[in-house]
Amino acid sequence: MTIAKLPSPPYYAVIFANQRTAIDDEGYGAMAARMEELAAKMPGYLGFESARGEDGFGIAISYWESEQAIANWKKVGEHLEAQRRGRADWYEGYDVRVAKVERSYAMKRD
Amino acid sequence: MTIAKLPSPPYYAVIFANQRTAIDDEGYGAMAARMEELAAKMPGYLGFESARGEDGFGIAISYWESEQAIANWKKVGEHLEAQRRGRADWYEGYDVRVAKVERSYAMKRD
Repeated sequence: MTIAKLPSPPYYAVIFANQRTAIDDEGYGAMAARMEELAAKMPGYLGFESARGEDGFGIAISYWESEQAIANWKKVGEHLEAQRRGRADWYEGYDVRVAKVERSYAMKRD
Repeated sequence: MTIAKLPSPPYYAVIFANQRTAIDDEGYGAMAARMEELAAKMPGYLGFESARGEDGFGIAISYWESEQAIANWKKVGEHLEAQRRGRADWYEGYDVRVAKVERSYAMKRD
């Protein structure tokens, strides 16, 4: 995983802060990879970043051109099924926060 | 680390996506803990979340009541020194994105 290459703001971020259960690590990894692949094909997709520590707490952020693009992605069939499995098995809990990125700056070593 | 307890939107998020160098892990950890402690004392601070994988890629998000609260935190003396050390030693690169959280929802297992 690395820092997403994003356009200049404004754009939208969906912040997914989540705590994993200990259930089904292999199935979870396969789903996460598949969702990343599917999302990247959606209109208005801009990028994705995620990190998880050894304690099972993770942050995943997807970036989108518009609220409409976010709404379209949320209702894709395979994604709905992943959301259902997430609630049933994979997450102890999560918060989803939809935010409009207003400004950004960066540092990169030469 | 766990999911931050935040008020209802709107509020602000500062997304700090970063790649660590291999330099000075002990000093880095002490700085990170100190910054978390200091930030929590600032007016307008709402919460903090962070995760880092074994590849050194991390996401940290601080949450604030207002842009003014973010601006005040950015210029605190100890924080300025931490930013300088970050650019000099601790990060290969980072992106900072300031976003206004417009809506949120959550799931928590009983």
